[in-house]
Amino acid sequence: MTTNIAIVGYGNIGRGVHRAIDRNAELYGDVALSGIISRRPLDVAQELMNNGHPNGAVPVINANSYEGRTLANYDEAEDIDVAILCGGSKKDLPEQGPNFVQYFNTVDSFDTHAKLPEYFAKMDEVARDSGTVSVISTGWDPGTFSLERVLGDAFIPGVKPYGFYGLGEKGGLSMGHSDAIRKIKVVRDARQYTHALPEAIERVRRGENPNLFPGDMHWRECVVVAEEEADEKRIENEIKDMPNYFEPYKTTVEFVSQEELDEKHSEMFHDGLVIARGETGDGNMAMIEYKNQWASNPEATANILIAHARAAHRLSQEGRVGAFTILDIPAAYLSPRSREELLENFM
Amino acid sequence: MTTNIAIVGYGNIGRGVHRAIDRNAELYGDVALSGIISRRPLDVAQELMNNGHPNGAVPVINANSYEGRTLANYDEAEDIDVAILCGGSKKDLPEQGPNFVQYFNTVDSFDTHAKLPEYFAKMDEVARDSGTVSVISTGWDPGTFSLERVLGDAFIPGVKPYGFYGLGEKGGLSMGHSDAIRKIKVVRDARQYTHALPEAIERVRRGENPNLFPGDMHWRECVVVAEEEADEKRIENEIKDMPNYFEPYKTTVEFVSQEELDEKHSEMFHDGLVIARGETGDGNMAMIEYKNQWASNPEATANILIAHARAAHRLSQEGRVGAFTILDIPAAYLSPRSREELLENFM
Repeated sequence: MTTNIAIVGYGNIGRGVHRAIDRNAELYGDVALSGIISRRPLDVAQELMNNGHPNGAVPVINANSYEGRTLANYDEAEDIDVAILCGGSKKDLPEQGPNFVQYFNTVDSFDTHAKLPEYFAKMDEVARDSGTVSVISTGWDPGTFSLERVLGDAFIPGVKPYGFYGLGEKGGLSMGHSDAIRKIKVVRDARQYTHALPEAIERVRRGENPNLFPGDMHWRECVVVAEEEADEKRIENEIKDMPNYFEPYKTTVEFVSQEELDEKHSEMFHDGLVIARGETGDGNMAMIEYKNQWASNPEATANILIAHARAAHRLSQEGRVGAFTILDIPAAYLSPRSREELLENFM
Repeated sequence: MTTNIAIVGYGNIGRGVHRAIDRNAELYGDVALSGIISRRPLDVAQELMNNGHPNGAVPVINANSYEGRTLANYDEAEDIDVAILCGGSKKDLPEQGPNFVQYFNTVDSFDTHAKLPEYFAKMDEVARDSGTVSVISTGWDPGTFSLERVLGDAFIPGVKPYGFYGLGEKGGLSMGHSDAIRKIKVVRDARQYTHALPEAIERVRRGENPNLFPGDMHWRECVVVAEEEADEKRIENEIKDMPNYFEPYKTTVEFVSQEELDEKHSEMFHDGLVIARGETGDGNMAMIEYKNQWASNPEATANILIAHARAAHRLSQEGRVGAFTILDIPAAYLSPRSREELLENFM
């Protein structure tokens, strides 16, 4: 079964999804790109040509003319099994999600933890009404890290699972938080590096099971390009006061030129660690650690999104409808391998 | 919903399951012990009394008088939602599994990787005929490590996931392999320590994606108590020639007295590591590492079995039948938490 995928939004994650579809198609032949839906279709078409895709080889659909089932300049909507929504969580997905899931099975990486239940409920409602499947909030956190927290909690009774991000000196680039800063009108561009506090990791590994608030575990470094004549102090305050994203943390804000940002902040490395440290039986130490390192954070997210597109398609083929998270999906549904191959080579 | 669990077999894993049920019942109140089914019920009843359980508080059922739905000295079979089969994979489970799954939903930790597809097919057939659910081969390998191999493979296209066991100097105690040695008639007792070969781990971390045969990754240390007058050389050969278990590895066999074994080899520590090291996009490094450390290997397995008993019960309540592995089960089914709690606190 081939899963035909449309990419909605062609930013960092959208581009990563494009590469990931190509790679998975080459390796397994079970996914294909139906097209790219964008609010700036001409730019995307140009970018594709610049990157060696012949003109028109990848259909580019104008998101602005997208109304109901009628795609103004695209007549093959039926060929889309799953739309991967690559917009940001702060402004794009709350609109994009409920809109697109009316017509397509969707997968997204909505990452505002505090608003997740609300987003789930909305997507579940629209997906059920529309007979579609919506896999929300997948990537590595929320996503694989959520999964590992739940598994740790299920396997070590009474444990507290912790998640840490940006383990090394340079920290890790958070796309969601960078995007949140870029949504400020007078910000032209931004990068946000998350830094774990090593002493917090050590306390967890020692088995203290400490009560840690978000600000006890991480601090946040923001590198910002402001529009000309913007009030930098005001931007700094707006960032630091942003609920959920920055307000609970020690946050630094540095202003640089676009040139400096492009030159010194082009890497997209991120890493993270889930630790569940508890006991079994009568005081027997038990510890699970899940660590990932990604030279390209958006490509990592993209590959996880592709795996969930497979799952969304399979769930839909089974007649399932409504919203799902990674917690509701068996691993076999994410895999390009056959049942037999999994039993023989992976168990 | 409470999952009422019967323990079948009261060895290391059975005892671990007993402790794990008590602990989970105390924390979450969603599991309860229905009874223990054993081939040596008087010994088990005595052991329970010695450990502070009042006589009869835990029903002990004679496995020898177990025939069909009639349990000779136990009239509450209907109170068993799931039977956790705690026998060994070499001789116990191939008989116990197909027998018990006729009457109960079952969970087991069958761990002979090479015979897993065959065991799955048999359990699937009997479970479908009987309208029951069988979750096979769960623990940490096969089990959580299988899950992590499949996830690593699904998220990093083209990667080769590797599993290593016994990371430290003393290695880790393998219950399945110890059990396999104890099945040799003239062996009274045994411990098997698995040792990872550190240079193999380094090659994988460096991204070489090497072709490693089992013997390139681990060696096996066996500590054996022979029956009096047994031919030690013959035991050693029988161990070293055992297919799947020892034949592919460098294996050492040391004979000791029962006293020495009890004194120096009572710990049940084990640890392990799954590594998936590959690339995303155009050569961007991607690495996932999943590590666990367990002071009590059987208690770790026991807690994983309990989580899967929850899942077996839920699957059965949904009307599902047949055999399942950890790859077929959404994480939410393993968790004692409600859907709302998972969305709010774990995503």
